[in-house]
Amino acid sequence: MRTIWWDSAARCVKMIDQRKLPLALEIAEYTDYRAVAEAISTMVIRGAPAIGAAGGYGMALAALQSQARGTVELVSDLEVAKAVLDAARPTAVNLAWATGRVLRKARDSKRSEVPAVADIVLGEAERIADEDVEINRRMGAHGATIVPQVANILHHCNMGTLATVDYGTALGVVRAAIEVGKRVHVWVDETRPRLQGARLSAWELMREGIPMTLIADNAAGHLMRTGKVNVVLFGADRVAANGDVANKIGTYKLAICAQENGIPRYSVAPTSTIDLSLPEGDAIPIEERGWEEVAAFGGTQVAPDDVPVYNPAFDVTPHRYLTGIITEEGICYPPFVESLWQAKERAEQRIA
Amino acid sequence: MRTIWWDSAARCVKMIDQRKLPLALEIAEYTDYRAVAEAISTMVIRGAPAIGAAGGYGMALAALQSQARGTVELVSDLEVAKAVLDAARPTAVNLAWATGRVLRKARDSKRSEVPAVADIVLGEAERIADEDVEINRRMGAHGATIVPQVANILHHCNMGTLATVDYGTALGVVRAAIEVGKRVHVWVDETRPRLQGARLSAWELMREGIPMTLIADNAAGHLMRTGKVNVVLFGADRVAANGDVANKIGTYKLAICAQENGIPRYSVAPTSTIDLSLPEGDAIPIEERGWEEVAAFGGTQVAPDDVPVYNPAFDVTPHRYLTGIITEEGICYPPFVESLWQAKERAEQRIA
Repeated sequence: MRTIWWDSAARCVKMIDQRKLPLALEIAEYTDYRAVAEAISTMVIRGAPAIGAAGGYGMALAALQSQARGTVELVSDLEVAKAVLDAARPTAVNLAWATGRVLRKARDSKRSEVPAVADIVLGEAERIADEDVEINRRMGAHGATIVPQVANILHHCNMGTLATVDYGTALGVVRAAIEVGKRVHVWVDETRPRLQGARLSAWELMREGIPMTLIADNAAGHLMRTGKVNVVLFGADRVAANGDVANKIGTYKLAICAQENGIPRYSVAPTSTIDLSLPEGDAIPIEERGWEEVAAFGGTQVAPDDVPVYNPAFDVTPHRYLTGIITEEGICYPPFVESLWQAKERAEQRIA
Repeated sequence: MRTIWWDSAARCVKMIDQRKLPLALEIAEYTDYRAVAEAISTMVIRGAPAIGAAGGYGMALAALQSQARGTVELVSDLEVAKAVLDAARPTAVNLAWATGRVLRKARDSKRSEVPAVADIVLGEAERIADEDVEINRRMGAHGATIVPQVANILHHCNMGTLATVDYGTALGVVRAAIEVGKRVHVWVDETRPRLQGARLSAWELMREGIPMTLIADNAAGHLMRTGKVNVVLFGADRVAANGDVANKIGTYKLAICAQENGIPRYSVAPTSTIDLSLPEGDAIPIEERGWEEVAAFGGTQVAPDDVPVYNPAFDVTPHRYLTGIITEEGICYPPFVESLWQAKERAEQRIA
């Protein structure tokens, strides 16, 4: 089962509703691109590559929904849809990357009939989703090379199957390492405030029988200091041209602590996550989310009434704290300003 | 209202039941020292200085409960009680320090009647509790000197009124800084897994109208990196002779991150927390707590059934990451092996 897919019979997008995991596995269906934007924003689907795929399918729905009588009008409708979808979550660049790729395909199309262009749009969305799986497998193969034969890997958030269309980025590296015979145990950061580690990473690792142990994020330092972590793997929502990485809140503190303890730490990120238009991480917009994510849990209020809360969803890890960035085009090492550009270049040649 | 006190009419120990905060303010009563040990272990009362006071009162109850017909027998009963109380939480040294101090008082007593010695024991327990308040005020006065005129203080866990008999250690410094006219805002780490920050620090700061904002522990790094933190203050459950500090899990990662960002970071700890018998932090026993603290919250299960969990309650921050240790005898700076010894010395002279 994929995290997100196109149901061609029902002509709708289906997604695993990740808000319901691990207690229930429910499938949500969408026929309206605005509802897809809402699903992205409320985190029915999350994880940079997965929301890229959702953005692509959202554009496909917009094309099918369009009342346009000509292709110029259709492209104009798609531009509106792109703006709505991109605004759903501001930090992950894959979203704008995917909607932009689909829009370009529509613009560049030589066809003059609206249904034909809509089919092209859907085809491109499907291609983005299919490519994601293949890209993750290639990232996994590159990443597996840096995993020791017997390894305790610490993972923050969920960059697994559920963050992608299938296989995963950081947890894809774990899967690939196991496939080549390495013995891996994963320490899973619960990842407050939304507990993607406790809810999603734990669920998918346990389902596949991959050895794992759940910890409070606060325990990661103690494990590192006492020699119980060999590698730290996390994802990326956006990578700036200099290698600064925006990722789930808490990544920065984790990366510093790993460096201080001499533990290799990698961001695992498809090249679609690299945003060469941003010179450095401080230019990446950081999404802030709601009060209730911190002050309450699962309907249970944990803090006093009306407590003031600050809840940034991401932080920026400056490139100097990273050992490398694992992409589908190989592992990028410092100076990232060169290696990331080269990886991005190779990826674009492959698509073209 | 104190966190813990002796009700002389009812001849019992009373405590605020901290498991019920912030949603309810309930008072628990104890007439049996074994029930006090249970209250410490289940965290009805927590915070190193507060459980020191609870240990003292537990000894007083043991003396009143004793069926001893002579003082030798009474001392023997108190030795048993000390062992039971000390085992309730292994990391905080104040517990053994307080029970030891009371036991010594009983042993050294020249009185031969059991009730007279029991009175002496109760008197010493009362003295430990009263001294704690005075010590916190002195720590606060020393600590206030390192707080800038306008300051954003980041605080981990709860080392406030609720962690002590009254006033607090780290939050005592906040109170003292405000009393001398400084403008302070506190970033409160929620402090997973037991959320002492969200439940207790937020509650007591809001009650007093001290400006504060609650954050997920994961957000602390982002705040530090973006220049929004001036000082980091936390407590200590035990300080080794070289200045290594065992404190609530997560302190270590926080201290490293503060150092990396050039932010001063202090442990605020009464000299009773200093254990000169331990050369370094790795000799401090680290308590592990239950599965449910991480996998569930407030009765709501958040992780998959049967998920493996590792849940250490404390970590050790090596002394090289500390700017200083604020005690009631002044601020200790490196080399801690000298400054801590001197502070402990001054404190013992004061008691004697």
